[in-house]
Amino acid sequence: MAKEITNREENYSQWYNDIVKKADLAENSAVRGCMVIKPYGFAIWENMKAVLDQAFKDTGHQNAYFPLLVPKSLFEAEEKNAEGFAKECAVVTHYRLQTDPDNPGKLRVDPNAKLEEELIIRPTSEAIIWNTYKNWIQSYRDLPLLINQWVNVMRWEMRTRPFLRTAEFLWQEGHTAHSTKQEAIEEAELIHELYARFAEDYMAMPVIKGYKTESERFAGADNTLTIEALMQDGKALQAGTSHFLGQNFAKAFDVKFLTSENKEEHVWATSWGVSTRLVGGLIMTHSDDEGLVLPPKLAPIQVVIIPIPKPSDEIMEVADKVAEELKALGIRVKIDRDMKKRPGFKFAEYEMKGVPVRIGIGKRDLEKGLVEIARRDTKEKESIALTDCVSHVHGLMTTIQDNLLARAKKHRTDHTSTVDTFEEFKQVLEEKGGFIYAHWDGTEETEDKIKTETKASIRCIPDDTVNEDGVCVYSGKPSKRRVLFAKAY
Amino acid sequence: MAKEITNREENYSQWYNDIVKKADLAENSAVRGCMVIKPYGFAIWENMKAVLDQAFKDTGHQNAYFPLLVPKSLFEAEEKNAEGFAKECAVVTHYRLQTDPDNPGKLRVDPNAKLEEELIIRPTSEAIIWNTYKNWIQSYRDLPLLINQWVNVMRWEMRTRPFLRTAEFLWQEGHTAHSTKQEAIEEAELIHELYARFAEDYMAMPVIKGYKTESERFAGADNTLTIEALMQDGKALQAGTSHFLGQNFAKAFDVKFLTSENKEEHVWATSWGVSTRLVGGLIMTHSDDEGLVLPPKLAPIQVVIIPIPKPSDEIMEVADKVAEELKALGIRVKIDRDMKKRPGFKFAEYEMKGVPVRIGIGKRDLEKGLVEIARRDTKEKESIALTDCVSHVHGLMTTIQDNLLARAKKHRTDHTSTVDTFEEFKQVLEEKGGFIYAHWDGTEETEDKIKTETKASIRCIPDDTVNEDGVCVYSGKPSKRRVLFAKAY
Repeated sequence: MAKEITNREENYSQWYNDIVKKADLAENSAVRGCMVIKPYGFAIWENMKAVLDQAFKDTGHQNAYFPLLVPKSLFEAEEKNAEGFAKECAVVTHYRLQTDPDNPGKLRVDPNAKLEEELIIRPTSEAIIWNTYKNWIQSYRDLPLLINQWVNVMRWEMRTRPFLRTAEFLWQEGHTAHSTKQEAIEEAELIHELYARFAEDYMAMPVIKGYKTESERFAGADNTLTIEALMQDGKALQAGTSHFLGQNFAKAFDVKFLTSENKEEHVWATSWGVSTRLVGGLIMTHSDDEGLVLPPKLAPIQVVIIPIPKPSDEIMEVADKVAEELKALGIRVKIDRDMKKRPGFKFAEYEMKGVPVRIGIGKRDLEKGLVEIARRDTKEKESIALTDCVSHVHGLMTTIQDNLLARAKKHRTDHTSTVDTFEEFKQVLEEKGGFIYAHWDGTEETEDKIKTETKASIRCIPDDTVNEDGVCVYSGKPSKRRVLFAKAY
Repeated sequence: MAKEITNREENYSQWYNDIVKKADLAENSAVRGCMVIKPYGFAIWENMKAVLDQAFKDTGHQNAYFPLLVPKSLFEAEEKNAEGFAKECAVVTHYRLQTDPDNPGKLRVDPNAKLEEELIIRPTSEAIIWNTYKNWIQSYRDLPLLINQWVNVMRWEMRTRPFLRTAEFLWQEGHTAHSTKQEAIEEAELIHELYARFAEDYMAMPVIKGYKTESERFAGADNTLTIEALMQDGKALQAGTSHFLGQNFAKAFDVKFLTSENKEEHVWATSWGVSTRLVGGLIMTHSDDEGLVLPPKLAPIQVVIIPIPKPSDEIMEVADKVAEELKALGIRVKIDRDMKKRPGFKFAEYEMKGVPVRIGIGKRDLEKGLVEIARRDTKEKESIALTDCVSHVHGLMTTIQDNLLARAKKHRTDHTSTVDTFEEFKQVLEEKGGFIYAHWDGTEETEDKIKTETKASIRCIPDDTVNEDGVCVYSGKPSKRRVLFAKAY
């Protein structure tokens, strides 16, 4: 089974597609650029959702639901936002089909059911939400408004890849309203921090936190905070963004409030989101040439128990007992009860699916009071006393989670460079890839030229760089601070 | 606050709209027929989702996600299904907007971005899913396939009401594939039973279980099982349906499997769903002229603690302690810490929102070691020793849940009639409304005529009626069994 996937060294992109397919995560659908998320892939997303949803609620946010469709006149109200998304909009123009008089048994669009105003499938929901907030906000007492929704959105992308870039994707989008600029900035930072913690603590995916340059900002934002992760192939993945929207949407939709001093002011806003793209990031952070590797905290199955050579009463009794004890510790366990497949086949299957720990229970081992425990992350196997099995496996949940993060951090360190000349910049990019810290003169012109010449973009102006006098690697003009470059997904 | 809603006797329909608005559940949006589900309304739906989702998983189902859009050619493959939904389809015809040369700052549909094939926003997902299942199912070993998704769907309805009938709504749709007819029938029945238990055990909404007549079936189904609830105004609400689809979709999409005897056969199917409509049913089962009434099991806030006359250190210390103890019992508690609103205002507010139990903590009461406990369902108030408060309130969760179900059952019993003549049928319908058990000759012609003349439809052929010789109330022709009639939402 493992032989069916391409080696990473050979073709990373094909390897990614193979993993998505062979680990049963997703597949392309009959609709261009839209994927079917299969149960195993969806279970990973559900685990992510559960953690994030709780984190949002713990910080005072509530879920709601706003319509899928946005009337064109609302969509175009915030001009930069509209301009930014116009080219990717799926447009509903009619509301009825009818039988096709020329083709019996076929349907056609009813020409008499044309909408007076076209409706856009939301590429993001600022427009429809701020048009609604207008009626919800009158005074400072109505603020802050801290709302999130878990929904599907659509951006008509030309080149798509499962999870990483799809025409339709699932995400959460938070939309908050505040009475002061400072409070909105703090909200955007709070979520930025929350995303970073989620990436590291749950996905075991270290991220660089920072803010985007003006040209890379969300359309309609005054500032975009981002977390940037480094994939195994040396390319960056923008993993979650949190936007300070200033008063742009409040002005476009005329959302004002009375302050406690009875003055009328425009409301301050943020929006923020992470999407099913995170599943792609998870794959490209940990997986290997044998298949998916999942951090225990997000794995749909954390432990699989495989009877060797096949289920027998004696073995199953032990398996059930071990499973029960693991479940009591909150561990997600599966016993493979299939009678027909051989153990070797099963081993490969769960390796492909990235199950963190495999417990092999064999007749001969049992006679010696032993079971075999295999780790997916290191592929280490060891014989453990049955009596220690549960506590050992319980401990492995943390050990593996920590190891994956440490390994990803090491990979990032090994693929992070600091360069001072454009020659070096290009050389590092070509030979090693990864993150590059370099001085930049702060102009969009230089940013564009570097991108055109090298395909590397400024991922962010990182929080973790300090003021340091230098000269721009491209223009030689003065710079006060290094920024983070990389090729990106 | 309570004065702001219409009395049910005066105008039930207006009362319903008032509740939806004043209890902050939902509101109309800028898009015709689409609602915004506000945080409080969404929290009720989230509670419903959590229970149902667990019940689906406990019965072996997995969640997945299939695309929002369905290519027209797939949509029309199962003819009856296509015909049934064609008139309600929102159609995507273009994938790009452009700046309008005639209107600076405005956008228009890019005429060069017309899709080769129109895409339908899913009104239901059988078509896209069965087109996918085709590749997932080869042999009996791939069956059963038990999949569910929680998504938005769109049906372009002309007359809409929040929750009850909206152009866009949220629902879950299960789609299962089986190797035998019997297994598919049993699956449809399993879910039918699960829906009925959910309605009674969680929503405290008793339902009649049965199956639909041919003319009321889901388009494309061989049989539709339904749960029918009775609202306070004597109208029925179809609350959840489970369809046995036979081999209709398997044939339309050519989904065959190899049996264990190595024969090729078409797959058997079911589909089933409940939607945000359930929130409407919940409102119309329990609420009263003072506002929403919620069963504890689904209430976003089960207990509210109100300091009287306002928060003070002494009162808040007690409130915090009580809240903490209630939370430890798994109860969802809110302490109202607002300093400005008067208790009377707060009482009315939580009454409007249907919070099952209110604990009033007052200074004078506290000196006597007492707190005041008010039930939303009966509006009874009693003084209880502070030391008994937590256990008393804990008990009330069950008491109120049971009382709401008993009350709803009594209402249903009081509004269920058995009639033997059409005169009586019309009289009961006009004077009392409700469910009517009557004989029917089994023809679509009679069913249609009764519906045209009285607006009452056959809600179902109930599981709970027995064979009994009689004559059809309308045609006088022989009948073997009574069926259930009612006007319906």
